[in-house]
This record gives sequence, C-alpha cells and structure tokens, in this order.
Amino acid sequence: MTHEIVVIPGDGIGQEVTPAAVDVLRALDLEFEFVEADAGDAVAEETGEPLPQETYDLAATADATLFGAVGETAADVILPLREAVGSFVNIRPAKAYPGVDALRPETDLVFLRENTEGVYAGHEDRLTQDVSTLTRVVTESASRDLAEFACDYVSDDYDGFTIAHKANVMRETDGLFRDTVAEVAEENGVETDEVLMDAFATHVCLDPAQFEVVVCPNLAGDVLSDLAAGLVGGLGLLPSANVGPERALFEPVHGSAPDIAGEGVANPAATIISAAMLLEYLGYDDEAAAVESAVEATLEEGPRTPDLGGDASTEDVTQAIIDRL
Amino acid sequence: MTHEIVVIPGDGIGQEVTPAAVDVLRALDLEFEFVEADAGDAVAEETGEPLPQETYDLAATADATLFGAVGETAADVILPLREAVGSFVNIRPAKAYPGVDALRPETDLVFLRENTEGVYAGHEDRLTQDVSTLTRVVTESASRDLAEFACDYVSDDYDGFTIAHKANVMRETDGLFRDTVAEVAEENGVETDEVLMDAFATHVCLDPAQFEVVVCPNLAGDVLSDLAAGLVGGLGLLPSANVGPERALFEPVHGSAPDIAGEGVANPAATIISAAMLLEYLGYDDEAAAVESAVEATLEEGPRTPDLGGDASTEDVTQAIIDRL
Ligand SMILES: CC(C)[C@H](C(=O)O)[C@@H](O)C(=O)O
Ligand SMILES: CC(C)[C@H](C(=O)O)[C@@H](O)C(=O)O
Repeated sequence: MTHEIVVIPGDGIGQEVTPAAVDVLRALDLEFEFVEADAGDAVAEETGEPLPQETYDLAATADATLFGAVGETAADVILPLREAVGSFVNIRPAKAYPGVDALRPETDLVFLRENTEGVYAGHEDRLTQDVSTLTRVVTESASRDLAEFACDYVSDDYDGFTIAHKANVMRETDGLFRDTVAEVAEENGVETDEVLMDAFATHVCLDPAQFEVVVCPNLAGDVLSDLAAGLVGGLGLLPSANVGPERALFEPVHGSAPDIAGEGVANPAATIISAAMLLEYLGYDDEAAAVESAVEATLEEGPRTPDLGGDASTEDVTQAIIDRL
Repeated sequence: MTHEIVVIPGDGIGQEVTPAAVDVLRALDLEFEFVEADAGDAVAEETGEPLPQETYDLAATADATLFGAVGETAADVILPLREAVGSFVNIRPAKAYPGVDALRPETDLVFLRENTEGVYAGHEDRLTQDVSTLTRVVTESASRDLAEFACDYVSDDYDGFTIAHKANVMRETDGLFRDTVAEVAEENGVETDEVLMDAFATHVCLDPAQFEVVVCPNLAGDVLSDLAAGLVGGLGLLPSANVGPERALFEPVHGSAPDIAGEGVANPAATIISAAMLLEYLGYDDEAAAVESAVEATLEEGPRTPDLGGDASTEDVTQAIIDRL
C-alpha cells in the first residue's frame, strides 16, 4: 500500500533539513509518494497567505506530513496544520545523545502535550482600552483523549506517567485536566503521579532522571519541553509528532534559524528523527529503529555539523546516516 | 520612626526559618515592632480558614510583612496576602552563590513578575459537563505599573531588561502586555529586548549570562523563576518580594518542606535574604547589604545546613550570620 507523505520544507534551514530527511526516507525504498507543499514567510510575502489552502488540504488528507520550519509566521502555519491533521497530542521526546554536550546527560523524557486547547484555543477580546482577555478552554473530552493515548503510549516501556499542571491556581480548568487524566489512567491500571508545572521546572533541572513520561496541558508542554531541550543541549536534536486519530504531522522542534540558513550546514538530525517517528507511526517499526540507530551512531562518531563542534555539511551528515542504515 | 513588621511563619519549616530571619533583624537594633500572625494548614485544620481575617488585616496595614511558608493551603494564603499588600510586582532574584553547587554557576537573574492578573485573575467556569474555561486578564494599567517599576529598578545597575511573553499565541493579551511594557520603557529611555517564554526556557539553560532582568506576566514569572532556581541549585536560597505602592510582603520561594520540618536543620538563607530585601524596601540600604554579605560569607565559608552538604542546624547558621553582621 502506497502512503502519501506531504512534505512542507518551509523557510530557512527548513529548506535544507527537510530534503535531507526525505533522502533518508527514500533510501529505505518503501512505497511512499512524496508531495511537496509550500508554507511560511516566503509564501506569505508572495501571496499574503502563510498557509495556502492547498497545503492545508493536502495535510488534512495525507497519511502523514513532514514539516521543516518556518520563520515569523510560525504560529500562523503550525497551529492550523496541527488542526488540519486533527492532532490531539504532541509527542516531544527530549533525550540526551551520547557524544553531544548536554547540561544534564541523564535526561531522557517524553512530553505528551495536549494539542488542541488551553490558551491555544485562542478566544481573545479587547474589552476596553484597558482590558484584554483570553478564554482558556479545558475539556473533559480532550483530556480524556490525551490520557487514553498516554496510557497506550506507556503500556510497553514505562511504569506510568507524571501529570504536570497548575491546578492549585487554575482549579477548575487544570483541576478538570488533572482529575480526568488521573481517572482514565486508573481505569486503565496505569500508575500516575502529579507535579505542579513550576515545581517541575526546578526539579527537572536538579534531577531529570526522576521523570520519564510527562503529560501536560498545551502551554505547559510547550514551555517544559523547551526547558528539557535546554538540558539536552538545545533544540537542534529534538523531534516531535503531532498525532491525530487518522493522520499525523512530524516536525523538528527547532525553528528556521535564519542566521545559518543557506549555508548548507544545518543539523538535519531533529528532522531525520522526526522522520523516524513518521515511520513508526505508519507501522514501519524496524525501519524507524534503523534510522534512529543510524542517527545516534552518527551523532556519536561523526561526521558532525558545526553546531555540534564539527565541520561537516548537512549533506555529509545525511549521507553518513544513509550509509549506516 | 517605628516600623510595624507582620511576621507569618506558617507551616513546616516556615516555623523555623521565619524566627531565624527575625533574629537577624532584631540583631540590627532598628526600630521595628514585630507582630506575629497565623496562616496555613495548621490554622485551617483548627478553624477551617487558612488565612484568618485578622492576619489579612494586619498585612494590609503594616509597613512590611515577612512570610515563611505554608503547605497544602499555599495558594489560599499567599494569593490573598499578595492582594492584601496591594502588590503589583513580585521581585525574584535567582543568583548562584559561591560555595553552593549550581548547575549554571554563572546565573544571575532577576525576574519582575506581574503579580495581580494573567491566569491568576481566576475567573473560572464549568460551562458544561465537558467544558471548563478560565478568563485570563491582561490590562494596560497593570502592565504599565509593572513596566514603570521595572524602568526604575534597572536604572542604576542594568542596561535594560528583557520582556518574556507568548504573544505569538496570546496575541491580544500578551501582545498588550509586550507592547505596553516596551512603550513605557521607550518613554523612559530604557532599552528592552524580547523573547518568547518557551525560547527563554531553552536559552536560559544554554547560556544564562545572556539575561539579566526579565519582565514577564504572572504565570510565566512563576515557571521561569522556578526554572532559574533549578539552575542555581534549588529553591533553598531564593528570596522574593511582593511590592505594592505602600507596603510589601517578603517570602522565600521555597515551600514548607514537611519532610524535614521539626528537625531544626532547615536552611534559613532564603528567608534571611528576603529579610534583607525587606530592609532595603524600608530604606535601610546599609543594613540590607550587611545582611546579604553575611549570608554570602556564611554560604561560602560555613557553617552549612544538610541541604548544602553540611551538618549545622538552622540555629548555628543563623548565629554565624548574626556574628558576621
Ligand atoms: C510557533 C508556536 C506557535 C509553537 C507553539 O507554541 O506550539 C512552537 O513554540 C512549538 O512549540 O511548536
Ligand atoms: C503557591 C502558588 C499559588 C504560588 C504561585 O503560583 O504564585 C507559588 O508557586 C509561588 O510562586 O509563590
């Protein structure tokens, strides 16, 4: 069965790392049909629209989408695309790789971030000259969907998960989130503990190994996973998956890095690991594992791009990864 | 002129570190009148009310309040107390001290956290069985008050400040916050730059020295300052001040630490540094500096409490600080 994969390189280094990841996928010789689509600052400049309807429609119907990075218009592109694929969970692994300088080399976390609501639901108003409001939305149904996914996610490899929230202040909304997630976990016989998101920020620095899988509301997941990125040495290696019931979108956590764009030295690792998550999502578990090992071996043994202290190009690193498949 | 200082020890180690800080203040022989008041889990258990009206009224009329820590009822106590003193800004320095093990010893940050609104404004509703909402409030006036304070705060010792926000998602509310703060800074000839709060979380881990004073909305300040605590070695050394136009409340950032409460080994440093902030607030700049140096010298040379690898008691450390005044 042929899978249609939409590829959205975007801006800046997105134009370099996304083709690199596609090269890796092509090297596996699977029945993939790649369809390239536009989004981002460059398209916005031309057409006034950072996310063309055609791109939205492609992502909304393809089996999987591989997304690179976009610049200033990031929020205008990625938030609708997450919606296009019907994603209710953003999976963000943050682990330190051997051979890569990390503030906390023992970090090995996975964030399961609610991907549809919270402050991202986006009802804002300017009530008066002085007063603006935003309606933060938390539903039992979205919390339940996330929790069911989390229970399934941890079933093989983990003992349970941690719920991070701020229910001591957001009693009704984060209270509903926490209680629903804990209840679903209990129904499924999955162990949970809970932590306030501010306390998590301190404790993950002091001892990241005490956490494994962290389930959290949308903005908490955004900030806490970026914090974890700081502990493993930056955003350059972090992949992510936006998963929905029928399709999914995969993206590196890093941005379009305009400062190094066009030089051919961007680190393709995060996007290639995102492609490995895509393979796993489509059921190609062996291929996913092979890509991940090839990336890990390359991070450890080189060649390396300049961000990791090497002087190899994006192409060299990509080829080295392909050679190790 | 005699200053009335309300002292609220609270629960757990609050009962140990707060008297320690009062001992230090007494040793300075200033015209202070101390009035002790109750709050926290223990009072709640007795009376059903974690924050007695009398305590609220005392804090609302005293020149300054020194607060220890409370347990489970923390939010029910500290949020109304911040309101009682009319606090619009929470000052949270996070600096690594010589002699203390820190993940990033070069960390030297001050967070100026908006202290009245954001998600803390607290309008929550359960609209249906499925849907709960919280109205996040951002006003131009509160943003302006914070910004004016920030401009004044940086005027002597800093080049400017960084505005941390999430205005790419919360466009109207954090947009209003960012624009207002930037505008006030410009009116006052103060330089600013800005950073998304998620990007801040990564970058402060990678290179904390690139930031100095960080101005942010309420929840962002809560989480990002706790993150900085992780970089300097924990909450045990972090003081804070809740400042209003006419009075202020000073508190260590740490909690009531029930695990070590009653053993007499709690580290009093954060509360004593909070007392130094109180001295500075009341105009006793020399005394404030003396207390801070005495704490720093004691952290570096000992004696030290067990959390810092020593075996001294709270009393030993407090006496050593007093001896160094
Ligand atoms: C670009 C922005 C809207 C986005 C988010 O906040 O989710 C980004 O920070 C991320 O985490 O993917
Ligand atoms: C106890 C809680 C309400 C409080 C807050 O969120 O402000 C605490 O975390 C703090 O930062 O002082």
